[in-house]
Amino acid sequence: MDTKQVQLQYSFCLKDYVGDSAGLTSPEILGLSDRLKAALRSLDARRKQGHLGFADLPNAEGDVKDIQKLAARMKGKIDDLVIIGIGGSALGNIAVQMALNPLYWNQMSAKERKGWPRLYVMDNVDPEPLSALMKVINPKKTFVNMISKSGTTTECWANWSILRTFLEKKLPKGKLNQHLAITTDPLKGPMREWATREKITSFVVPENVGGRFTVLSSVGLLSAACTGVDVQQLLQGASDMSQRCWNAEIMDNPAAVFTAIHYLAYQRGRKIHVFLPYAQSLYGVADWFRQLWAESLGKKLDRAGRTVEVGPTPVKALGATDQHSQIQLYLEGPQDKLVTFMFLQNEKTVLKIPKDAPAPLGGHTLGNVLKAEGLATRAALTEYGRPNLSFWFPEVSAYTLGQIFFLLEMSTALMGELFDINAFDQPAVELGKKLTKSLLSGQPADQRLFKDNPSHYV
Amino acid sequence: MDTKQVQLQYSFCLKDYVGDSAGLTSPEILGLSDRLKAALRSLDARRKQGHLGFADLPNAEGDVKDIQKLAARMKGKIDDLVIIGIGGSALGNIAVQMALNPLYWNQMSAKERKGWPRLYVMDNVDPEPLSALMKVINPKKTFVNMISKSGTTTECWANWSILRTFLEKKLPKGKLNQHLAITTDPLKGPMREWATREKITSFVVPENVGGRFTVLSSVGLLSAACTGVDVQQLLQGASDMSQRCWNAEIMDNPAAVFTAIHYLAYQRGRKIHVFLPYAQSLYGVADWFRQLWAESLGKKLDRAGRTVEVGPTPVKALGATDQHSQIQLYLEGPQDKLVTFMFLQNEKTVLKIPKDAPAPLGGHTLGNVLKAEGLATRAALTEYGRPNLSFWFPEVSAYTLGQIFFLLEMSTALMGELFDINAFDQPAVELGKKLTKSLLSGQPADQRLFKDNPSHYV
Repeated sequence: MDTKQVQLQYSFCLKDYVGDSAGLTSPEILGLSDRLKAALRSLDARRKQGHLGFADLPNAEGDVKDIQKLAARMKGKIDDLVIIGIGGSALGNIAVQMALNPLYWNQMSAKERKGWPRLYVMDNVDPEPLSALMKVINPKKTFVNMISKSGTTTECWANWSILRTFLEKKLPKGKLNQHLAITTDPLKGPMREWATREKITSFVVPENVGGRFTVLSSVGLLSAACTGVDVQQLLQGASDMSQRCWNAEIMDNPAAVFTAIHYLAYQRGRKIHVFLPYAQSLYGVADWFRQLWAESLGKKLDRAGRTVEVGPTPVKALGATDQHSQIQLYLEGPQDKLVTFMFLQNEKTVLKIPKDAPAPLGGHTLGNVLKAEGLATRAALTEYGRPNLSFWFPEVSAYTLGQIFFLLEMSTALMGELFDINAFDQPAVELGKKLTKSLLSGQPADQRLFKDNPSHYV
Repeated sequence: MDTKQVQLQYSFCLKDYVGDSAGLTSPEILGLSDRLKAALRSLDARRKQGHLGFADLPNAEGDVKDIQKLAARMKGKIDDLVIIGIGGSALGNIAVQMALNPLYWNQMSAKERKGWPRLYVMDNVDPEPLSALMKVINPKKTFVNMISKSGTTTECWANWSILRTFLEKKLPKGKLNQHLAITTDPLKGPMREWATREKITSFVVPENVGGRFTVLSSVGLLSAACTGVDVQQLLQGASDMSQRCWNAEIMDNPAAVFTAIHYLAYQRGRKIHVFLPYAQSLYGVADWFRQLWAESLGKKLDRAGRTVEVGPTPVKALGATDQHSQIQLYLEGPQDKLVTFMFLQNEKTVLKIPKDAPAPLGGHTLGNVLKAEGLATRAALTEYGRPNLSFWFPEVSAYTLGQIFFLLEMSTALMGELFDINAFDQPAVELGKKLTKSLLSGQPADQRLFKDNPSHYV
């Protein structure tokens, strides 16, 4: 076995461990084999037709070399890298940064950052974070990466319009475009036209990869490369995991086992799927997964057009912090959750607790205490009859991060097959976009939806 | 009406707006009047007996003056304030800081911070954040506030033991205690003994206030005062809201209406309670509420000892960001959610979008766009038959923050009464603590709970 493999451990969701009423059995998981094999075949057929772009990203040439060249040019010259993107054009970037660079990266000196820039992700349309950003960046040493697959994302344009004005005032005339890279559709949309017209550095979001599956495309790789992350190792991890996730031997396929267990749990009323990393560095992965799982699987209609209103609610939590916030509920509340831990086999940074600390802490490392709290919390969940899974990371590295990204993307695709829904669209979000445009242009599409009763205020 | 009042708007959870199957009616809400009045009487009786300490905090003298004196001494002299606390001894501190100071506060110059220190909250036992902290703080200008009501919190001692060693190496001999304040029980526990023995500056967590209800005690007020927050206004807001929340006219009592609607929704299968601020500055309030709601209400037994396994699952989300992550699920997924928006009536920072921005953005402020997106999302939820509530903030200030803290604490207490459970304990978390100690001292309490099957790894 490759000792750098991320592994899924599933003992503690079984009847033998959590009891008959909450637990599953291995035969039940195996019982989904035929459906999962069919799902794999169906996905592979679509992949071959070019409709499953995310699955090819780990081995795609893509823009990797150009991104690495840009990163090399940025090193030592750019202090502040600003990503303007939202949803799938931000969550992966944040997850990579949180996992692989120190928590207070932006406060470290350029030397400590080895010349790589600070990183800011503007993933909202809120004046507070944007004005805070403009207080701390140095325009002359700022580089902006605008990311929008369609090229039309309102939030990106709103942020850019303001930031552009701020930068233009401080930069020599005509230099703005040298501080900008655009990541968008290869052929169409207003950002592609703009990049072509003004010869702005640009990268491609492949047409057949949906926003929430783009972390391993230029979308996620640019900010990763520019903050010193080994993007080849990210892709290698994903590529190696991809081998495991196409395995038709279901019990050897971690995506298939993860999916089968979540599907069975869902069918039995466990519709809340908690991701609980015992590593602050992996909290961003939980947030990234939250979009993937919710937006892909939350659907009104199945593929035959029947109303199903299906979809698990993903919840991000953090060990050990949330032991003092959520664990009481997870232990004693309704039996409506499946908890997935993420554990590190070995800590990255070794901090020794002095021997004179209160027992039993003295002599342990801090990572050891964190792991003990995680294992104890898992044991408590098990004792309370609450099924749970564990991912084990041999380390937090670009290589293991690439693995977990691919594993969870593939699980999402498989879960869509079991639910018999389209996991790759998001039909409902259009209404909100339409209504926003109506409001801003002064013509509410449907006054009725905005009218309330003034007596309903307390 | 006081125009600085936070208000709850509930039109969009009613049948007239979201339809018959999902909506409530005003008579249904009113139908809970008698139970809510009884709950208020019961809580007030306990308050008079000294068992409901949180309700008295807004008007308690407490340590406020001493805290303000400490803050004044710190100003201009201390660069880095480190809070060591977890759960209720961290979430309120973070919520106040996020709400009232700029997002990149720690990167701003001392002058921009008006001499107030940077703020770090160490609320985990993870070597990564702690080692990152030690890379960026200046020991000679660092001040630590250790917070633990019991004085025994493992996570606090683990962090302190390491940080103490780090600081001692850089500080003149014997000076460490001048860089420390301890916030703990007034009389008992190892931290109180330590503070008394070594004459360390100390503050009080009132004995009758549970950890998750302490934001308006010394726990939350010290870091607030030391980062320039007007703590008197925080308390004034809470005090003014407290008047409204003891009102026996249920429909004029925002805590009672909030509770009634959440209770009715829960009984009808809406067990996921989403907090969705359209203001990044209020995201910390959503996270603070998450502990309050989950740990208070997630209970196995009711007060008669019957097994009920009750408890809503609170979810924090952020507008507009999560429109690109969670809204598809909220619109089309299972009818298992009640969404509570938090809106600002007026933006704090005005950022104008230039006129030449793509239509319909040009000429609007960024805060305007954010609000339009929020109202559009709310309209979309309403159109999809998804009940929702809105809190309206006239502004984000210490005064409104104090209001929302008290309103939600009171709602939690009332919800505990309707569920007929003890909202003030957390019996299940003891097992995890016990198992952690066993693991760290090398004597697992119950080997069975830690033993898995080696073949259950994929």
